[in-house]
Amino acid sequence: MEKVYYSYDEFKDDIKYLTDKLDKNYDCLVGITRGGLLPLLALSHALNQKEIKTVKTDLYDFDRKKDAMNLQMETNFSKYQSILLIDDIADSGETLKQVVKAIQKQNPTLQIDTATIFYKKTSVFKPTYFVKEIEDKWIDFFWEVDFRNED
Amino acid sequence: MEKVYYSYDEFKDDIKYLTDKLDKNYDCLVGITRGGLLPLLALSHALNQKEIKTVKTDLYDFDRKKDAMNLQMETNFSKYQSILLIDDIADSGETLKQVVKAIQKQNPTLQIDTATIFYKKTSVFKPTYFVKEIEDKWIDFFWEVDFRNED
Repeated sequence: MEKVYYSYDEFKDDIKYLTDKLDKNYDCLVGITRGGLLPLLALSHALNQKEIKTVKTDLYDFDRKKDAMNLQMETNFSKYQSILLIDDIADSGETLKQVVKAIQKQNPTLQIDTATIFYKKTSVFKPTYFVKEIEDKWIDFFWEVDFRNED
Repeated sequence: MEKVYYSYDEFKDDIKYLTDKLDKNYDCLVGITRGGLLPLLALSHALNQKEIKTVKTDLYDFDRKKDAMNLQMETNFSKYQSILLIDDIADSGETLKQVVKAIQKQNPTLQIDTATIFYKKTSVFKPTYFVKEIEDKWIDFFWEVDFRNED
């Protein structure tokens, strides 16, 4: 699979593009750990929305076990009417699909929109908002590779 | 107060420096929202430690109310023996001081070390690890200013 480095400069442009596309306000921005953390932080500052939360899952556990995604839902969404759920990429799409399902189950009336930077055409889940549609590429996100110790 | 822009490139160097200074492992890395989020993510990748949590507080509320810091402790630390609590800066130091106190109160035997990028000499709290000691400067962190909509 082709490997592509995704830089901080490109990310800045993409967050600007994503911010311009958003056409409503949300009571809370929610990032999926770890991939959604920096998109969450950037959108939080771009939209001046300090109400943010994180949820944690493990895609690789999920891929192995299929029916036992390890979704850590310590977060309580009961006081919100609408949230924007944020991740870096809709790849297989299983993470977003399962997280939305789990949050919706606990909060049936909550409106959940989703936003990612990348969207793979083969994803089983299409985000409400995304910046770039890609085909068969592996994205090396700068926040994943720039801090790795190469010693 | 002198205003200084803190860039992504400088941050990369500082995370490398901080990672080299850390001389033990922690069961979990904990970032204080929002300032500690990106240092948390960077250290998580640098140390290859996927076990991460976030805690939320509001420094400005605290500064106004003094005795009523709004610390949102949805996070449960009971399964850990040691954590590294991470923030961008020990400024007044009140945030770190109160967060450590609150976590320690709920988890008396937990070992809590702390790490920041910046440490102000006037801070009431000195982090276990920090990268840069500063005097009277205002730091414009790239993740706070780069995404702001200037339209």
